[in-house]
Amino acid sequence: MPNQDNPFLEIAAPWVAGLSPYVPGKPMAELERELGITDAVKLASNENPLGPGPKARAAIAEACGDLGRYPDGGGFALRMALAAHHDVSPSAVTLGNGSNDVLDLIARAFLQPGTESVFSEHAFAVYAISTQAVGARARIAPARDYGHDLEAMAALVNERTRVVWIANPNNPSGTWLDAATLKTFIEALPRTCLVVIDEAYTDYVSEPDFPDATLWLEAHPNLIVTRTFAKVHGLAALRVGYGLSHPKVADLLNRVRQPFNVNALAQAAAVAALDDREHVRASVELNRAGMRQYTEAFARLGLDFIPSVGNFITVDVGRPAGPVNDALLRLGVIVRPVANYGLPNHLRVSIGLEAENARCIAALEQVLDR
Amino acid sequence: MPNQDNPFLEIAAPWVAGLSPYVPGKPMAELERELGITDAVKLASNENPLGPGPKARAAIAEACGDLGRYPDGGGFALRMALAAHHDVSPSAVTLGNGSNDVLDLIARAFLQPGTESVFSEHAFAVYAISTQAVGARARIAPARDYGHDLEAMAALVNERTRVVWIANPNNPSGTWLDAATLKTFIEALPRTCLVVIDEAYTDYVSEPDFPDATLWLEAHPNLIVTRTFAKVHGLAALRVGYGLSHPKVADLLNRVRQPFNVNALAQAAAVAALDDREHVRASVELNRAGMRQYTEAFARLGLDFIPSVGNFITVDVGRPAGPVNDALLRLGVIVRPVANYGLPNHLRVSIGLEAENARCIAALEQVLDR
Repeated sequence: MPNQDNPFLEIAAPWVAGLSPYVPGKPMAELERELGITDAVKLASNENPLGPGPKARAAIAEACGDLGRYPDGGGFALRMALAAHHDVSPSAVTLGNGSNDVLDLIARAFLQPGTESVFSEHAFAVYAISTQAVGARARIAPARDYGHDLEAMAALVNERTRVVWIANPNNPSGTWLDAATLKTFIEALPRTCLVVIDEAYTDYVSEPDFPDATLWLEAHPNLIVTRTFAKVHGLAALRVGYGLSHPKVADLLNRVRQPFNVNALAQAAAVAALDDREHVRASVELNRAGMRQYTEAFARLGLDFIPSVGNFITVDVGRPAGPVNDALLRLGVIVRPVANYGLPNHLRVSIGLEAENARCIAALEQVLDR
Repeated sequence: MPNQDNPFLEIAAPWVAGLSPYVPGKPMAELERELGITDAVKLASNENPLGPGPKARAAIAEACGDLGRYPDGGGFALRMALAAHHDVSPSAVTLGNGSNDVLDLIARAFLQPGTESVFSEHAFAVYAISTQAVGARARIAPARDYGHDLEAMAALVNERTRVVWIANPNNPSGTWLDAATLKTFIEALPRTCLVVIDEAYTDYVSEPDFPDATLWLEAHPNLIVTRTFAKVHGLAALRVGYGLSHPKVADLLNRVRQPFNVNALAQAAAVAALDDREHVRASVELNRAGMRQYTEAFARLGLDFIPSVGNFITVDVGRPAGPVNDALLRLGVIVRPVANYGLPNHLRVSIGLEAENARCIAALEQVLDR
């Protein structure tokens, strides 16, 4: 096992051996230089191709005047803005250095050796990593039609389960759970088990029976809902996300939080972004048009795909996706292989600008020789 | 115990109960509004009163063009720049969301229930918090003349010790350890015990026998040196720090690191700041003049202080410092009480601009009625 090839593992916490070593990859800018590409389209990380809106940009410019000072460790303005936005108490809010950080805080506060967390096959990779990084056991339920099989997940919950992780919509599949189904699942869970609904992609969804789990917080003290500013708000570079929960749960998450975990520009930008409904609307509309562009193209090319309500679509290329991905890269099209998510024949494509999508579709057509 | 007044502690990791609840304080801007102060001087957080230099500012402005994209998770450019700066391998570098994050990664990778870490009385608060947050035991050595007593610390090292934390210079005392003393201590430690030299304030020190512990990395595979861009580089708002260590130690730290822990603007700013020797020089010079301003004033006022080589000075106000701090606040002078560091009669004052220092001194003179 290559993970074991490190003498310092002898003095490390034993679960560190089960974490993948970080492979120091080159950033895209370096790769482009090596491949001689100057105009690559980046459709790999489910980012907003419009970036942040004008209100967030203005807030960032203003906050750049005071970079020598530490950020507000309490995130006062942002917690107040989020409390107003969601109609919850500011004490229900936990701020994170991206929602990844909030997920990690949940693991650090509530998981430990001897406890378990439950999630689905093809779910967001951070659930497994955060569980392993604190020495807890991951129980993984098989997926149903690439999405969450809540019955299978419920069957894995026992007296050692502290956290159930559910992404709605799910990444990388783009599948989703309707309000009634999800609510029934949450209601059946023991109160001693927290359930995390990861709503990173919620803003993109327009299905009428898609739930807003933040509305269930009052009725369910064991519920935590996480959101991010990296997707529809276009602030991935700055790192800011949040959790909403019972204030007593937030109290424990904040105990393990580093006091200055969210930088000052991210806080200022997030407050402004929350108020920019026009940018959210434009981003969602662009995404809807791009999604149509892909689904029509995939139908024309005879490619299966997983129907998605997110800002990405995961397509079955009908063969091992690695070489297809390499060929796309050489054409300057960067998408995401998802073999590590148990989907070796699929590629996940983020919805970009119309011209970016067109280039991706043309490259795929060429590589697959359709 | 107020910490126990939370029913969710029953399902939390047991050590979370030993962490202080976060008290959601108001930010300075709110306090100023309430106190009717419009021109407060902030000398509480050991920040650089000049903020970032022109090279870092330019890099931030440029990086603001691409905020919709995730940061480079590998921190390629910054790790390359740091490797060149310190003449180490890029694989020796661990990037953190501030050096607080690096300290936390060390605790997460190497501490667990049943293990211990050793640090000094009056040491940086994060050593205790990071140790408690992973359920390990803190062994605290009494200080000698407010500084580290390395003999007392060595006496606490045993077969359960995984990490010894040493800040050089120390915060909040401003004391320091010379090269020979520190090296002797490190050489006597068992190889199974990591020693962290926290060099956040190193750039301010000009003592000839003050060590640069990064030069000892090759000889000491159990050594980790941490640095930050929040102090002399003036980038506290953005959050970026780093650790240098044996690459195999960095491998384990990077396994518990969140891949996007350092935001894109921080990475770009840090690369530029490393290259701005003129800004470092100007910041150190300003600090030296300000330190003289304070020590001369304290001598004139008959106030004892702890001789400091950092960008702050901790002064004995000769009575409980809380009420003195409150009175200073009402005069618009914000400094740091350090009762939580075991120094109830002291206040820590960060070195500011000349006029800020003068206002602080005048306010102190008025409040103490000297």
